[in-house]
Amino acid sequence: MKKLSIFVAVSIILNVFVACTSNTESDNKTSKQSDPLPSWNDGQAKASIINYVDEVTNTESGKYINIPDRVAVFDNDGTIWSERPLYFQFYFAMDRVKALAPEHPEWKTEQPFKGILENDPNALMASGSEGIGKVLAVTHSGTTVAEFHQLVSNWIQTAKHPTKDKPYTDLVYEPMLELLAYLQDNSFTTYIVSGGSIEFMRPIICDIYNIPVNQILGTSFKTVYKYNDGKPFLERYPEMDFYNDKGDKAVNIQKIIGKKPIFCGGNSDGDLAMMQWTASNSLPSFMLYVHHTDSIREWAYDRKSHIGRLDKGLDQANKDGWTVIDMKKDWKVVFPFELMER
Amino acid sequence: MKKLSIFVAVSIILNVFVACTSNTESDNKTSKQSDPLPSWNDGQAKASIINYVDEVTNTESGKYINIPDRVAVFDNDGTIWSERPLYFQFYFAMDRVKALAPEHPEWKTEQPFKGILENDPNALMASGSEGIGKVLAVTHSGTTVAEFHQLVSNWIQTAKHPTKDKPYTDLVYEPMLELLAYLQDNSFTTYIVSGGSIEFMRPIICDIYNIPVNQILGTSFKTVYKYNDGKPFLERYPEMDFYNDKGDKAVNIQKIIGKKPIFCGGNSDGDLAMMQWTASNSLPSFMLYVHHTDSIREWAYDRKSHIGRLDKGLDQANKDGWTVIDMKKDWKVVFPFELMER
Repeated sequence: MKKLSIFVAVSIILNVFVACTSNTESDNKTSKQSDPLPSWNDGQAKASIINYVDEVTNTESGKYINIPDRVAVFDNDGTIWSERPLYFQFYFAMDRVKALAPEHPEWKTEQPFKGILENDPNALMASGSEGIGKVLAVTHSGTTVAEFHQLVSNWIQTAKHPTKDKPYTDLVYEPMLELLAYLQDNSFTTYIVSGGSIEFMRPIICDIYNIPVNQILGTSFKTVYKYNDGKPFLERYPEMDFYNDKGDKAVNIQKIIGKKPIFCGGNSDGDLAMMQWTASNSLPSFMLYVHHTDSIREWAYDRKSHIGRLDKGLDQANKDGWTVIDMKKDWKVVFPFELMER
Repeated sequence: MKKLSIFVAVSIILNVFVACTSNTESDNKTSKQSDPLPSWNDGQAKASIINYVDEVTNTESGKYINIPDRVAVFDNDGTIWSERPLYFQFYFAMDRVKALAPEHPEWKTEQPFKGILENDPNALMASGSEGIGKVLAVTHSGTTVAEFHQLVSNWIQTAKHPTKDKPYTDLVYEPMLELLAYLQDNSFTTYIVSGGSIEFMRPIICDIYNIPVNQILGTSFKTVYKYNDGKPFLERYPEMDFYNDKGDKAVNIQKIIGKKPIFCGGNSDGDLAMMQWTASNSLPSFMLYVHHTDSIREWAYDRKSHIGRLDKGLDQANKDGWTVIDMKKDWKVVFPFELMER
């Protein structure tokens, strides 16, 4: 990720500044006097987050949690950046279909490729999970891992969101960047646990979220080690290896992180298993659902949406008293660029 | 791992003491004046390790490597602890067969179970990869992850090596513990990348190696998330999910660590791919093969061994100038308990 939007860059600089000026050495109190979540409106959601972090970092609260156990997991699409009208990774895939089309004359007559090449915005979703799987497989393979990173890096520098007309990296949620920085500042280890592809996310989000590559968990494609004339490389195949969604998010958390999280952020039923898993921690835990309620600044959707459906999760959050963020009400700004417009 | 052998405990305390008394804040020089590898005889292997670490941590060497890029990967069986006569995990599996036998009357006549129950030391290996796979599957599944950890923890506290008559945790290589501590002390992030099962290793080795659970990469068994009456759990199935060996070690390093290592330690052809992968780093890298040459203190084997075969790897190490440790010649002591006997 060589080139960041100026707004995102400003946000990162501000967050790094906050991190650097607070003393993280020993959970000290002085850093907690300034507002760690300035883009959040005062209310129950914000207060409960701050109260939780204060308690688990205060050795005298009776709820203190040791630093190695401060594991926080976050979904990505719809939780830290937008996922509408389609997952951003799908736009990468569709642009890749166009780039690869000259090598695939058969796509002119084969759906969903035909529709994608004719700029039909509904073609991909209309093809169902089989068609989507086919498009993802062919557009996320056929290269080495290093080449794929380069493709993604090149794409993200120029691609623009189809309706917001902004770089995709502008469409991260400023309040969630603040939350990530706040947790990191309090010695939480923050992980992304997403249905998105690991190697699609890494070149884009690591710098923006201040999260190292090994803390990005996601979907993987079959990859094979090759050794050719003294040079090793990893070749990506058009076959899914692991789809990181629903119960498999909890499975992957155990396999890779090896500890039950104490903090979980998500926005859909695909995150419900890792919410339940986090809620079952014997240590005090915090479950946070982002509820998309803002049709003006972002999008409004929940129980009936094909993308990011929040139905069973909303029921369980209400039943079990998990925190549900009302995006419209709880967030002063949604995107970093709004900070510059205020 | 609640109970450590006294020898291993002494070694850990010594290593922690060394780590605590050296200032790791800024790659300073004073800590390098004492011998970081006291159980290694002076010689080319020891000198080249120390020279490499000095160079990559010295900002003025021209070979300085930033801390986040100091990724070190190590095989486990035969590299950090012994693997003879059989992998230690196989002894766990065989003891588990005996514990589970009452529920499986059919094992009395079915190989390799019959042989294991009759204490035939060759039964398991004689059954080949199919038989071994069957035994591992049935003994590493049928429980939740938490229950499996408990089984392993209970086993390691009382199990003894069949010929050395020591706890398995006594059979770690003191020089390799020193090497791990030395690299950690120089801000390397140390990973285990083993063919052993992740959830078998974690309860045993994390404390001994000073490596957190999320830095243990290994073989995994199919695991399924279940939610029963408000309680989530992860159920282990008798089916291999990922066999972490050969080229797949490099694949797993990319998937989970996300960076090419700069330091790789191994002992067999199963580690050759991650050696090659490390050697292809554009940053200065170090490849280290443990060569089992000591038939008295440990075991001597290489090109023709069924377990831990080192054949192609030895050829490439010699050709490419990688460091090959001659266990007999390079190590003053092999196991921590020898320190007390000297």
